Amino acid sequence: MLGLMQDRPLLISSLIEYAAAYHPQQEIISRTVEGGTVRSNYEQVHRRARRVANALAALGVQPGDRVGTLAWNTHRHLELYFGVSGAGVVLHTVNPRLFPEQIDYIVNHAEDSVLCFDTTFAPLVAKLAPQLTSVRHYVALTDREHMAALAGLGIPNLLCYEDLLANASEDYAWPQFDERTASSLCYTSGTTGNPKGVLYSHRSTVLHSLKASAADTFGVNPESCILMIVPLFHANAWGLPYACTMNGAKMVLPAQHLDGESVYRLLRDEHVTYSTAVPTVWLMLFQYLDAHPEIDPGQLDLRVAGVGGSAAPAAMIRRFAQQFGAQLVQGWGMTETSPIGVINTLLPRHATLSEEEQLKIRLKQGRALWGVDLRIEDDEGNALPHDGKAFGRLKVRGPWIASGYFRVDHDALDANGWFDTGDVANIDPEGYVQLVDRAKDVIKSGGEWISSIDLENATMGHPAVAEAAVIGVPHPKWQERPLLVVVKRPGQEVSAAGLLNFLAGKVVRWWVPDDVVFVDALPHTATGKLLKVKLREQFRDYELPTVKDEWTA
Amino acid sequence: MLGLMQDRPLLISSLIEYAAAYHPQQEIISRTVEGGTVRSNYEQVHRRARRVANALAALGVQPGDRVGTLAWNTHRHLELYFGVSGAGVVLHTVNPRLFPEQIDYIVNHAEDSVLCFDTTFAPLVAKLAPQLTSVRHYVALTDREHMAALAGLGIPNLLCYEDLLANASEDYAWPQFDERTASSLCYTSGTTGNPKGVLYSHRSTVLHSLKASAADTFGVNPESCILMIVPLFHANAWGLPYACTMNGAKMVLPAQHLDGESVYRLLRDEHVTYSTAVPTVWLMLFQYLDAHPEIDPGQLDLRVAGVGGSAAPAAMIRRFAQQFGAQLVQGWGMTETSPIGVINTLLPRHATLSEEEQLKIRLKQGRALWGVDLRIEDDEGNALPHDGKAFGRLKVRGPWIASGYFRVDHDALDANGWFDTGDVANIDPEGYVQLVDRAKDVIKSGGEWISSIDLENATMGHPAVAEAAVIGVPHPKWQERPLLVVVKRPGQEVSAAGLLNFLAGKVVRWWVPDDVVFVDALPHTATGKLLKVKLREQFRDYELPTVKDEWTA
Repeated sequence: MLGLMQDRPLLISSLIEYAAAYHPQQEIISRTVEGGTVRSNYEQVHRRARRVANALAALGVQPGDRVGTLAWNTHRHLELYFGVSGAGVVLHTVNPRLFPEQIDYIVNHAEDSVLCFDTTFAPLVAKLAPQLTSVRHYVALTDREHMAALAGLGIPNLLCYEDLLANASEDYAWPQFDERTASSLCYTSGTTGNPKGVLYSHRSTVLHSLKASAADTFGVNPESCILMIVPLFHANAWGLPYACTMNGAKMVLPAQHLDGESVYRLLRDEHVTYSTAVPTVWLMLFQYLDAHPEIDPGQLDLRVAGVGGSAAPAAMIRRFAQQFGAQLVQGWGMTETSPIGVINTLLPRHATLSEEEQLKIRLKQGRALWGVDLRIEDDEGNALPHDGKAFGRLKVRGPWIASGYFRVDHDALDANGWFDTGDVANIDPEGYVQLVDRAKDVIKSGGEWISSIDLENATMGHPAVAEAAVIGVPHPKWQERPLLVVVKRPGQEVSAAGLLNFLAGKVVRWWVPDDVVFVDALPHTATGKLLKVKLREQFRDYELPTVKDEWTA
Repeated sequence: MLGLMQDRPLLISSLIEYAAAYHPQQEIISRTVEGGTVRSNYEQVHRRARRVANALAALGVQPGDRVGTLAWNTHRHLELYFGVSGAGVVLHTVNPRLFPEQIDYIVNHAEDSVLCFDTTFAPLVAKLAPQLTSVRHYVALTDREHMAALAGLGIPNLLCYEDLLANASEDYAWPQFDERTASSLCYTSGTTGNPKGVLYSHRSTVLHSLKASAADTFGVNPESCILMIVPLFHANAWGLPYACTMNGAKMVLPAQHLDGESVYRLLRDEHVTYSTAVPTVWLMLFQYLDAHPEIDPGQLDLRVAGVGGSAAPAAMIRRFAQQFGAQLVQGWGMTETSPIGVINTLLPRHATLSEEEQLKIRLKQGRALWGVDLRIEDDEGNALPHDGKAFGRLKVRGPWIASGYFRVDHDALDANGWFDTGDVANIDPEGYVQLVDRAKDVIKSGGEWISSIDLENATMGHPAVAEAAVIGVPHPKWQERPLLVVVKRPGQEVSAAGLLNFLAGKVVRWWVPDDVVFVDALPHTATGKLLKVKLREQFRDYELPTVKDEWTA
């Protein structure tokens, strides 16, 4: 028997409609790509988003079509978030940091009919345009004045965003449709194969925003001022544009200006209370502050610095607490999880722990939130205990987790509906998840798993090591054994035996690699990830000195 | 084109599963009906809810069947919230304060197959049982020890809750089903006709809980300790049991112990941070504190006192602020709105207003939240402006708003999908709603509306008036004109002319009633509401002295 409640679809347009009605004057501050700052608000964003919807319709864009963006975090990109998705069109945010051939592949695979780009990417767009077979219109996210500079580049069917908006009517009624309708598309670039597109829905986005409003998640509220450093092309900036809008929070958008000074000025001038970034950006801020000892970061309004993308080091947590009076909150997620998976907040009972004991907890990735089911599995698919020791493949389930990829015809779930994150993790009795490795990088030695990341972290503790990678190489008895590949620091020396000796005291005996190879450089992806697949290929036939040994368990 | 996100239904069982996994030791404190206190937690509630599900199945209860409750706020009632709804059965919370013949009607109309009741209601149940044709099992929410006292009452097919649970297995997998499935049922007793049943769904309940977690709503979080004074049989205690569970908040359940001393002790001993009640309960607390000047309410942890059901007076807002250091937050909703409709929180920009200016805002009912669309309409269905002056019928729309009533074959929405609240309100430019009257009580005079409540409030300002009601009576020229019906305070005197004169300076001239009638008492419903329908019947043929006048506009 069904309940008798209204059957209202959860739609992204409802977020901007709400903010425009109830928080019309709440500010949206945007640095611009061209220089300068634009002070907008939710009423303006709503007006301009409706112009976007009309302008796209005039260009012949139909519901379900894809509109691509190559753009920084600006008010214009934000307007597209609502104008494109609100109209039932799919917003495809392309990561401009990918290799040009990847962008080429992605735009063609998505069949974007319109590509909107910041002028900083005009040379890239000009170069790619001849290969982009589906794109009918190129829209420069700028005004008439700045179009002149693009004239010589030869971008075909080039339009000016501000002209499009000026010529479009503000009069637009957001269409109502099935909440499961696709709303946005974001490709993940793995270390193997072609990028794969995660296709979010209106339902998943609205549910994710609702959860992001809770205090145990991002706690976005009308008093928040959120500096959105994490890019709009990375899992929808962690869903923050939607969550801010649902709650009428102030948003600050930095465009490409992510250097320490720019970030500091925005934090200070806009009274930012919450900001999210990868650790690299915070390190740049720290460097700026180091060079400017006259600045007291304790004067800032920042209360929470969110970190994701990679783990935050203890020193960063301490510095935010001591100098900023702010809490660094880690989280883990991925494009496929919208991206909220786990977030690290302490529990009320942790209040009595010492700072160092709290830190130990806070170095983990965090706990699952309502809406995210987690499990860790061994290779046979058996659930592993949550004892903080056993580690296995991390699988997730929930209403904002991907079920498959765009134009990939098999779904991405196992027989019980779980999505395999490709991460290996342990979960402690309190539910805190700690990532141990990527599943494809974990080394399978005699039926047991060895974490390549743990070995790399231990190796990095040696003063002569600049960078380290551990991979599994075939072994006749143990299936795989670890091989340590090391780049030495300039002018520093260490021997293979010296390194293995160094590790022997730090990891269990059977984790110690079987050999060490010194190289000049390690291979990386365009986004800076270590390319272990290439390394494994390179050392596929490497013969470990232990192959002929007589091993005992 | 649909997105590629997991199709996970929003189910109530997921709330208790989450809390049991991630906040297992978080306390659920319950006073009991029999006396004493039970300290439970989410793990316990989950275990016992699974026993409830197994016990119901053993009694032959099927998904979609209704299980009724006549019960106070206790851990047992909470267990039924999850055990009954989680199993796909409909939890029907009956208001024990209704007249016995209304309870009779409601239980039969819902066709409850099981009726669970607190022992305090045993005499009532014994009396009603012969007429309750659908009820197959009566479950006393108590243990074996307290069953003896019920033996002589002759309640048929009587079972003991604790025995049922002891004999049921804890092993139970919550079923997965369509999220639109009915989860709970709550009848509203209007002032006319039979009570009508609002049939909530799993989807509406989970969405309501997500919104209740946001700071602009109830802001329930893992640090909250919520004293739930509002009954579990009033619109699911404003959805708080679900919202607390989703967020792992501590819950305090007072059973029937709502006197000032009991409430004070729970606030103090359990470190309550948030509590919700109708104004009457807060007045009882104030009376207790008045009699105990040695108590300093400033020592309590209470930060928010939520008020709904009827408007909070300015003195109550001031007293919470000054003596408790707590904020009184008003809200408006109804059984049909789950019940969150509007909540009164100030906006960041109000921080600079004086206390008195803030108070003026805070006396209104509040602003809509994301998920609740509001409009005010005139009699022809035209939208009225949000200028804080124009008032009209308040209509609402949203995913946790009712579309109809149980076993009423027409739906309750207008052609555009709006639910008519039956309230008349104005909305100011900032979105704050102020209720003006009930639609059926508003007086329609010459095409304009007169608020009966405004006139009553103005009349109540006269020292000789104990209670006042204003109704519209037929008038040949103006359709209706106001008639003031007054109960005088014992020993006080005032004339009709004196009262009308008193009002003349306080309301616009054409609002002044055409006549005054003095009566000994006014008619009320079982729940204490003024029964204007009876009053209108009584004065249907009343001839106003103005009928023969020559009026000029």
